[in-house]
Amino acid sequence: MPDYADSTIRVRYAETDQMGVAYHSNYFIWFEVGRVELCRQLGFEYKQMESEDDSFIVVAEAYCRFKRSAHFDDTLTIRTRVASSQRRTIRFSYEVFNQSSGELIATGETNHVICDRMGRPKSLPAKYRVYFPPTTRDRAPVSSGETEAETETFP
Amino acid sequence: MPDYADSTIRVRYAETDQMGVAYHSNYFIWFEVGRVELCRQLGFEYKQMESEDDSFIVVAEAYCRFKRSAHFDDTLTIRTRVASSQRRTIRFSYEVFNQSSGELIATGETNHVICDRMGRPKSLPAKYRVYFPPTTRDRAPVSSGETEAETETFP
Amino acid sequence: MPDYADSTIRVRYAETDQMGVAYHSNYFIWFEVGRVELCRQLGFEYKQMESEDDSFIVVAEAYCRFKRSAHFDDTLTIRTRVASSQRRTIRFSYEVFNQSSGELIATGETNHVICDRMGRPKSLPAKYRVYFPPTTRDRAPVSSGETEAETETFP
Amino acid sequence: MPDYADSTIRVRYAETDQMGVAYHSNYFIWFEVGRVELCRQLGFEYKQMESEDDSFIVVAEAYCRFKRSAHFDDTLTIRTRVASSQRRTIRFSYEVFNQSSGELIATGETNHVICDRMGRPKSLPAKYRVYFPPTTRDRAPVSSGETEAETETFP
Repeated sequence: MPDYADSTIRVRYAETDQMGVAYHSNYFIWFEVGRVELCRQLGFEYKQMESEDDSFIVVAEAYCRFKRSAHFDDTLTIRTRVASSQRRTIRFSYEVFNQSSGELIATGETNHVICDRMGRPKSLPAKYRVYFPPTTRDRAPVSSGETEAETETFP
Repeated sequence: MPDYADSTIRVRYAETDQMGVAYHSNYFIWFEVGRVELCRQLGFEYKQMESEDDSFIVVAEAYCRFKRSAHFDDTLTIRTRVASSQRRTIRFSYEVFNQSSGELIATGETNHVICDRMGRPKSLPAKYRVYFPPTTRDRAPVSSGETEAETETFP
Repeated sequence: MPDYADSTIRVRYAETDQMGVAYHSNYFIWFEVGRVELCRQLGFEYKQMESEDDSFIVVAEAYCRFKRSAHFDDTLTIRTRVASSQRRTIRFSYEVFNQSSGELIATGETNHVICDRMGRPKSLPAKYRVYFPPTTRDRAPVSSGETEAETETFP
Repeated sequence: MPDYADSTIRVRYAETDQMGVAYHSNYFIWFEVGRVELCRQLGFEYKQMESEDDSFIVVAEAYCRFKRSAHFDDTLTIRTRVASSQRRTIRFSYEVFNQSSGELIATGETNHVICDRMGRPKSLPAKYRVYFPPTTRDRAPVSSGETEAETETFP
């Protein structure tokens, strides 16, 4: 299984704001594009997980650190990893790169709870556990500055 | 000066997703609505800070914890505080309440750097320092579980 | 029953683009805010029409003419009317005013088909027909330049 | 020069609504993605037209007819054409296809005025006229049902 998945995003005019840069909430939408692509590269379609297995990867926490701006028509790479996973939770981490400059422009993490259609927490169905094996610690700390202890604590 | 500002949001159909709840990235847009309203209640218009004083409150970090879902047509209160402020940075904290049930459905924080039109960090102009007096520690920790030490560290 | 409903919108930072004005697709979201408010003022909650009567007002056509720009933090009035209605279709018309200048900044129309949860067209349930009585001709032509004949034809 | 340009869009989770389909205002964002790609295939970058030639293709009218729904993760083709162009105006037309089924799911048109940075109408700079030669009539009627006369009249 791949360690991460890369998605390419081109910044849309609609995503810019009057500061002339991509508005920050869009990064969380791009993260979701990254998650869906990671699922695909891991070997399953997220939409089928919802429709066939009544399992939704619901966002419980979302964090992003914005290092540099993204501009209209920039092409970006969204690099998505499974940071950690338990029976009922999955944490993803993200890096956003400007493809032209190669610069890392943002990093982020999202924490998720597996829920059924009604929003009730449930265990990840067995067939998906191969893609999200339980981890005892983070496999992909978000930034080099973070210690092991800190990976326990979302803000 | 008020300790916090409350804004009312009604969840738009466009803000829902196929899970039947408000899509999570919208909370960050609502936070911004809260910031703009807090500025207004503090005594100034954010748009004038941009246009007249070449000072932009640029988002450097954004975090949200989603506790309960928001649904189409729900009316929500976005309660916004200045969590801390320094000469070049301001941190805001947010609580989102469902007005009908009174429940706290989300909390969040955003960290900002004051920048000029070109995105270069600068000090907050003197005229605005009265609204954002330097703090030595957070005035509004996001959650009770956080220790003082942790308030220094965004994830 | 009221002839129209007014909703107030304040332009969000997220809704601006790098041209410094509200991005045009947001007007269609504001139109929807106007429709929901018109339903409320007519006497019912649109969300209940969906959840209790399995009837969705699905957009079949959408049109907007942009006359003047809207800017960040502007307060706008979305004035919404039922332009015409038949057993299975409803047409709404919109006027957007800048509350500060009083100027009409945009006009629009949307055409809708009543559908069930599966997207199949159906007749408007009897209980809602009082709100949307069948019309033989448009009650609210979008612009003075339009002849009666033209009101039949969306572009 | 190409007669049209095709862009591929994958429907994002954030673009769906609680009806389980792509929310209609997103089509206008996809149209813009199509316009930017058409400019690129015609031979120039739209962002340079803005930044180097102080010329903005401002939306004056937007129309879309929604024939079938688009769903999460669907891949769509946005086919974009120059429908007509004059010295100060350009009209684009769009067809949206579901790549999997091949079905035409939406058609649309947008009418634009060339403006400078301040929003004042201006003539299209000479260097771009090769891409948008004046037309006496529409080169690409939006649908087969439209007569030549109708192409004159936006709704």
